[in-house]
Amino acid sequence: MSEEVKPESVSLCPLGMAAAPEQELLCIFGTGDLGRTLGQCLLQTGYRVVYGSRRPHSCGPLPQGAQVMSHDAAAQSASLVFVCIHRQNYGFLESLASGLKGKVLVDVSNNLKKDLYPEANAEYLQRLIPGAHVVKAFNTLSAWALQNGPSDANRQVYMCGNNAEAKQAVSEIATKLSFTVLDRGSLSAARELEDFPLQLFPEWRLPLRLAVGLTAFFFFYLLIRDIISAYVEEGKDISFRIMVSLANKVFPIVSLIMLTLCYLPGVIAAFLQLYRGTKYKRFPDWLDRWMLCRKQLGLLALGFASLHVLYTLIIPIRYYVRFRLSAITISEIRENRTTKFDTTMAWRTDSYYSVGILGFGLYVLLGITSLPSISNALSWREFSFIQSKLGYLTLFICTFHTYLYGWDKFLRVSSYKWYTPPGYMLSLVLPSVVLVLKLLLLLPCVDRSLTRIRQGWERTDPGDDVKRSLLT
Amino acid sequence: MSEEVKPESVSLCPLGMAAAPEQELLCIFGTGDLGRTLGQCLLQTGYRVVYGSRRPHSCGPLPQGAQVMSHDAAAQSASLVFVCIHRQNYGFLESLASGLKGKVLVDVSNNLKKDLYPEANAEYLQRLIPGAHVVKAFNTLSAWALQNGPSDANRQVYMCGNNAEAKQAVSEIATKLSFTVLDRGSLSAARELEDFPLQLFPEWRLPLRLAVGLTAFFFFYLLIRDIISAYVEEGKDISFRIMVSLANKVFPIVSLIMLTLCYLPGVIAAFLQLYRGTKYKRFPDWLDRWMLCRKQLGLLALGFASLHVLYTLIIPIRYYVRFRLSAITISEIRENRTTKFDTTMAWRTDSYYSVGILGFGLYVLLGITSLPSISNALSWREFSFIQSKLGYLTLFICTFHTYLYGWDKFLRVSSYKWYTPPGYMLSLVLPSVVLVLKLLLLLPCVDRSLTRIRQGWERTDPGDDVKRSLLT
Amino acid sequence: MSEEVKPESVSLCPLGMAAAPEQELLCIFGTGDLGRTLGQCLLQTGYRVVYGSRRPHSCGPLPQGAQVMSHDAAAQSASLVFVCIHRQNYGFLESLASGLKGKVLVDVSNNLKKDLYPEANAEYLQRLIPGAHVVKAFNTLSAWALQNGPSDANRQVYMCGNNAEAKQAVSEIATKLSFTVLDRGSLSAARELEDFPLQLFPEWRLPLRLAVGLTAFFFFYLLIRDIISAYVEEGKDISFRIMVSLANKVFPIVSLIMLTLCYLPGVIAAFLQLYRGTKYKRFPDWLDRWMLCRKQLGLLALGFASLHVLYTLIIPIRYYVRFRLSAITISEIRENRTTKFDTTMAWRTDSYYSVGILGFGLYVLLGITSLPSISNALSWREFSFIQSKLGYLTLFICTFHTYLYGWDKFLRVSSYKWYTPPGYMLSLVLPSVVLVLKLLLLLPCVDRSLTRIRQGWERTDPGDDVKRSLLT
Repeated sequence: MSEEVKPESVSLCPLGMAAAPEQELLCIFGTGDLGRTLGQCLLQTGYRVVYGSRRPHSCGPLPQGAQVMSHDAAAQSASLVFVCIHRQNYGFLESLASGLKGKVLVDVSNNLKKDLYPEANAEYLQRLIPGAHVVKAFNTLSAWALQNGPSDANRQVYMCGNNAEAKQAVSEIATKLSFTVLDRGSLSAARELEDFPLQLFPEWRLPLRLAVGLTAFFFFYLLIRDIISAYVEEGKDISFRIMVSLANKVFPIVSLIMLTLCYLPGVIAAFLQLYRGTKYKRFPDWLDRWMLCRKQLGLLALGFASLHVLYTLIIPIRYYVRFRLSAITISEIRENRTTKFDTTMAWRTDSYYSVGILGFGLYVLLGITSLPSISNALSWREFSFIQSKLGYLTLFICTFHTYLYGWDKFLRVSSYKWYTPPGYMLSLVLPSVVLVLKLLLLLPCVDRSLTRIRQGWERTDPGDDVKRSLLT
Repeated sequence: MSEEVKPESVSLCPLGMAAAPEQELLCIFGTGDLGRTLGQCLLQTGYRVVYGSRRPHSCGPLPQGAQVMSHDAAAQSASLVFVCIHRQNYGFLESLASGLKGKVLVDVSNNLKKDLYPEANAEYLQRLIPGAHVVKAFNTLSAWALQNGPSDANRQVYMCGNNAEAKQAVSEIATKLSFTVLDRGSLSAARELEDFPLQLFPEWRLPLRLAVGLTAFFFFYLLIRDIISAYVEEGKDISFRIMVSLANKVFPIVSLIMLTLCYLPGVIAAFLQLYRGTKYKRFPDWLDRWMLCRKQLGLLALGFASLHVLYTLIIPIRYYVRFRLSAITISEIRENRTTKFDTTMAWRTDSYYSVGILGFGLYVLLGITSLPSISNALSWREFSFIQSKLGYLTLFICTFHTYLYGWDKFLRVSSYKWYTPPGYMLSLVLPSVVLVLKLLLLLPCVDRSLTRIRQGWERTDPGDDVKRSLLT
Repeated sequence: MSEEVKPESVSLCPLGMAAAPEQELLCIFGTGDLGRTLGQCLLQTGYRVVYGSRRPHSCGPLPQGAQVMSHDAAAQSASLVFVCIHRQNYGFLESLASGLKGKVLVDVSNNLKKDLYPEANAEYLQRLIPGAHVVKAFNTLSAWALQNGPSDANRQVYMCGNNAEAKQAVSEIATKLSFTVLDRGSLSAARELEDFPLQLFPEWRLPLRLAVGLTAFFFFYLLIRDIISAYVEEGKDISFRIMVSLANKVFPIVSLIMLTLCYLPGVIAAFLQLYRGTKYKRFPDWLDRWMLCRKQLGLLALGFASLHVLYTLIIPIRYYVRFRLSAITISEIRENRTTKFDTTMAWRTDSYYSVGILGFGLYVLLGITSLPSISNALSWREFSFIQSKLGYLTLFICTFHTYLYGWDKFLRVSSYKWYTPPGYMLSLVLPSVVLVLKLLLLLPCVDRSLTRIRQGWERTDPGDDVKRSLLT
């Protein structure tokens, strides 16, 4: 939300009128929200600021210490101009083209939607005023972010433009305002910069759709299999079980499958390389795209696993569970039975809880190392060790947890209602396949071939400048 | 704690005497803790270091390779001097003023308390030696941090000063030592830099006081209402319930109220803008301050919610709970009753557990995206989507969870002991109001007005250079 | 894993052929994996790229827009050459020494193992071609990381070399590719840079060994004490209790001991300083090393504490626990007893659960503030407040939690099977000692002495330039 904020509440810029030894003059076209906040920040960093406005005498409140003139006059004395007006008004700037020759124009505009116009705002501006050097920068921040400064670690500012000195000048100003500047190249990158604030988790789309699809599929599968079948066959209404019991079956199933889908592309890629005998042939498109969203698949899987843990932990608080345990105890007394302690049952349930907790612990460790600040502090070998070796260990432990849960039910006919297997048996197919394939890849003979291929060896004559891979 | 650490245990600086191609000579006044560590690090980066001391022949252990002379001699050959002596000793530096003319003096001092002196150390130094260029830098690091290098991601160093070339020189040295330099402007910012290491969570003060106040209020409210009333009316001592049962009512109440206080200012601001018909009038002071600590309010609310989750999950382990369940079962047998399974109760309890878990899951997601490294990687639209849309969804789900918990108790007279409502009913007032107001804001007609106002439209004539808001 | 990735799938570099105003020509020796990816990225940033290959006409696929020639011809027109060939092939570069005179050679190589060769690759290269300026850079990234750009916050690139302008040139290229460059000094740091990607959690080795050792010790101690003794004395097989009950005793014990080992060195250091009367004497080696891995000790302790929490929360779901509770209820009915509610038991159990949860909450807060991005945003005083004051509070609360768990069992003879104390009593020794010592340190007279010593006072004559510590 863009709320109007008092310029004085800028917390991180020095308060009051700093004695400004730089005394460099910057010009801002536009006295709207962004223009005023930008001007305020520049003033406090020590620059002098002059605004260009079509109505210099009635343009609304401006920061203290800034002058305001007509566009021509304002642009004259400054060598750098921030263009804080809406694209629709760029047209009139054309008339100032002669006065802006050789100056740096910083385009900070954003559009409300993607692909609203055929060319990027910055390229349009450069076309209107070919004599000036247009630099696209600061458009990924709103007035609010600019005002509060780079308070959340380094605020990054993306920049692009054709002229190196122009970009250098903008870069210096950004650094004085405590932002980190990332140069994206020439002005043809402007479209990408203008799309950037409008993107909404592009790399999460596919994993999210997959998660929703799997959840829906298994929800209906289990709904029919457990609840509707109970109603049809025994006339019992156990629909209340949807909220927790059913959810607590769907979530772990989806989690295990998505964790497997994290590691499946790696296994497929390895076998492709073995089959082709070289690592220099391109992978298919779908495999590439799949490899790029492995991190998002893994994090979603962790989310589902966390929900599974919480749903499991509230089991003993549930009215249904307490009623049932009480009923068992009461029936045992009334029927004068004595149940003997089943040590195998104790071993089995304790084991799969214990294994499940350890698997979840490793899972959370994987998630924590995905955080940007942590993965940045790890060397490549450390990161690969955790995500690859510990990752497969997590997959193995979680699969083992599910097998322990199943125990001997795989062999009982009663598990297969209406000839369908329980949800967790379905969920075990993919992980088992992946773990078996990975085991194959770990066999010494196969591993040696693959390592050789990854170090650049090819089944045909490879040529001279074979670069050894940096990772085995 | 400042512990004395062997200089050789610096892990990230190159070991041994590096062949130093820079060969630039730097001078350090002061052979104390910081002076020595700074000198050691500079030597290892490749500079030559000379110390200035009043007693060159008996000044304690110095790093290998550094020379030591009198202050005059030491300052002569170097163009940059680190002043690592205590402010109380600045007086004697005045006698060296002529020798320090035109040189860069880096002031690294800190005080033990805020406002110990009327002017900042750096400004005092500049006043004593007007011919030199004083730059304030490195004061936000202790000897320990300097020694261990920027091992925890980018260590930031704040800097301020009047002379641009002096600051540039200091900036280069800092970069060679692997620090990121943030320029804070002119020397008038020195006071702020000197206060910075002394501040103790300034933006958390208000939210923490609020949390403590709410906790105390509801604790006593529920203490009187539950425990003291039970003692007064029935003579039962249920004071043991303070530790868990009472805590598990106070924490979710405080959490829900604080989460609401996160979103209430946004709603108030929106209605203010609608009422005034413009976004260019300043908000009241209190609203601004409230808006600035929304993140801290939300994180504290998440903390209380996490405690609520843990307190809920240990319910079935409690002796009191087990005793009571056992007593219910036993009484059912002894009185030869049969309790019928209440499906509505099952639906209701399973639902509010399920909804509570989902709400908490979203809550944790909001918390994770508040981490600096994550919020830095999100575009503005993504961040706004999560904090705003998902945030209101979390508030809605948590409120719904509490309504489900209340179910029909709102209508029963027995809930109202001594004519007071239960704690959770009190906690539902504010969230319900905020959600209703937000719903009003989402009505198409209201939403259109507000969007227009936020894009710069004003109920009176707005003028020419209206900048469209970057966010709706 | 190094998978072959299509160059077109680079998401963060501008797409298509950017009109390249820089037009600077860079040369790359080597057409392998890294060479090609580097060239692709440079092309997209706007540079012109020419490859040097021994077989210019049959060297495999190259990025669009790059030329390929013989090494001599390629190196001629460029002033900077990326050497992307394996060390074993450096020998032939010697023949090009004359053509490479005065140019910048960027060595990006890595080895597969540490200490494979007597000297670092970069120093070897510099020795072969003394006329060129060798800069070691980019070796800490693989082709994959380079391709995906610095998407996870700032990707840091380490650099070292003897010549300042050469390093400046490499630094500019790295910045254009959106990496942050950290200068590590002269070429003698090359060995360290080449070892960096091969290190595997060096600072975690000691804490991990300690954790494993403690876990093994207490596991066998409790195995013998609980399970084997039950078998020997009563013939009962309670081995199933290993999976959860035993684990849930080992984990909290190890956690508490490791948390104590976090704070013990600080206490030892303080007493050492008091004893010696000065802070300027070096600490023993072992104490220094211990102080450096306190953070890892604390994080491992947090991990064990989290496992303890999860194992505790699944207690009521366990078959063994439900069987036992049911058996107690049934026996109460069959023996026609009535158990009276024990309020002290209720107070005690509720208290130690409540205290345990609060201690764990503080523990998690400590862990969160250890994250790089968070500890970077805190001032020194804030960080010290949390890690030191809140840290000791956490240790105190967790110790209190364990004492509450023990309650009066310390006085009962039955607790001491085979004359050995229970595990948790053993675990209380160290924390109690540390807390008592810390309490001693907080006594006003002791605290005053220590503060004076830390501010630089020495029991003998301290000399003139005593630098006051920046922290008390």
